[in-house]
Amino acid sequence: MSRDPDYRRRYGDWGMVVGASEGLGEALTRNLAQRGMNLAMVARNPDKLSAAAKRVAADNNIETVAIAADLGEPDALDRIVAGLGGREIGFFIYNCAAENGGEFLEQDLESHLGNIQVNCIAPTILVHYFGRKMVARGRGGIVLCSSLAGLQGVYAWTSYGASKAYEMILGEGLWYELKHHGVDAATLVLGQTYTPNFQRSQQERDAPFARSRDPEDLPASVRRPQHPEDAAATLFAQIDREWIPHIYANAEDKAMIKAAANLSKTERILQMGDAMRATYKRAVAR
Amino acid sequence: MSRDPDYRRRYGDWGMVVGASEGLGEALTRNLAQRGMNLAMVARNPDKLSAAAKRVAADNNIETVAIAADLGEPDALDRIVAGLGGREIGFFIYNCAAENGGEFLEQDLESHLGNIQVNCIAPTILVHYFGRKMVARGRGGIVLCSSLAGLQGVYAWTSYGASKAYEMILGEGLWYELKHHGVDAATLVLGQTYTPNFQRSQQERDAPFARSRDPEDLPASVRRPQHPEDAAATLFAQIDREWIPHIYANAEDKAMIKAAANLSKTERILQMGDAMRATYKRAVAR
Repeated sequence: MSRDPDYRRRYGDWGMVVGASEGLGEALTRNLAQRGMNLAMVARNPDKLSAAAKRVAADNNIETVAIAADLGEPDALDRIVAGLGGREIGFFIYNCAAENGGEFLEQDLESHLGNIQVNCIAPTILVHYFGRKMVARGRGGIVLCSSLAGLQGVYAWTSYGASKAYEMILGEGLWYELKHHGVDAATLVLGQTYTPNFQRSQQERDAPFARSRDPEDLPASVRRPQHPEDAAATLFAQIDREWIPHIYANAEDKAMIKAAANLSKTERILQMGDAMRATYKRAVAR
Repeated sequence: MSRDPDYRRRYGDWGMVVGASEGLGEALTRNLAQRGMNLAMVARNPDKLSAAAKRVAADNNIETVAIAADLGEPDALDRIVAGLGGREIGFFIYNCAAENGGEFLEQDLESHLGNIQVNCIAPTILVHYFGRKMVARGRGGIVLCSSLAGLQGVYAWTSYGASKAYEMILGEGLWYELKHHGVDAATLVLGQTYTPNFQRSQQERDAPFARSRDPEDLPASVRRPQHPEDAAATLFAQIDREWIPHIYANAEDKAMIKAAANLSKTERILQMGDAMRATYKRAVAR
């Protein structure tokens, strides 16, 4: 089946990216804008968001609307619906994420509950709301952003990975359920991505990529985080061609996962955990 | 490393099973009781729970305490702590589950949020609470019950599977993080299990196993649900020997997953989805 290259005809006039003010979110909005869609952009910080919305509108000759909302708050859907002012969303991307690193028991319970709010509850509410409208119109696209940390338990990212596993399976299940209703859905599976958020967290922990994406003192075997532009481009190259339920943002990650397919979970968890633990220790020891 | 066969010496005097009044939960309590542990049993229905607690106490010459609590309510931890009356929990099993079947968009949002409450928020709160106490004592055991539906999106079980993926990764991550602190943890991965809950849901939908675990009119190729006693026995046989992060309750499931390891997620989701969809249609058409 060849796909209509015109996203506006295929999905509707307006796309929405939640978590859109910088990094991967901004890269995702640019890709939708380049495909002709108007954009509702949602993020917490109104100033940064408004600047990003103006940039993408001017660069692509489309309309944008900036909606300031905190996905960790229970009123997020109300704010988003109010901000939309009746515009229909035909393409929805959930890119917002809480990222709570550190051992599970060392973190406060509040950090874990915030993680569930942003990474499980909020996408569930939004996908339920916009998904029903898409099915009623018989067209639409939904992308949920997940993480390699959702594929197996990862040291220091236990509840983050758990919540990302929730998003992963949600997007995969929707792929199957909604294609019978004319609506496309998928999970985008990301590895380390060199976003401003990632850079900040590396700096806070004085971790390996605190100063640069290509630190000179790291062995060549250590994988560099992916550029957000490349992650977004990989997603759209895939869905321009065909929607599959589980899309790796990075071809190297996909190859790595494929190579590890016959390892037991125990082996994979030990491998990832030992590597992550060495990174954390290294970060602490610097 | 050989393991101390005496659970009481190894973990402490008291175990807790959440979701303990029947089915798999009751089978799990029996296994802990046979290993000499006293048991705090938690479930929603006080009458059924109290009867189960009396049975397991009399059969195994141990103490039990029955704590009625609804894991879908925000006061569950308070009720459990009050019910414990200072008893220290050395072995914790979370077997409670919301099971919301049906297409994601056909279900009410409330059903999905209830699913997150019971399958994500409640185990996170309880594991955080009891886990910290175990680490402080330098010993303990934690088992979270998950599902094959957490391994990939499954038609009609999208948000259930997503929440079970959360529990899966939580248990796996804790396995790695807590073994450095003397505490064991694992995820128990269940397929269809012939519990009273499962039987009720089959009856409600007039589904294949509505009347029997061995329906005569189903082809021999259709897998029969596992007996809960067998699922519990498999778990304890494994952890008596060695704790691994991801324990299949059914050897047939383990073999099936291993055989499918080199399939893409797309292939696995289509395979599971088509089978599940046929079952649902068959159930509806009866």
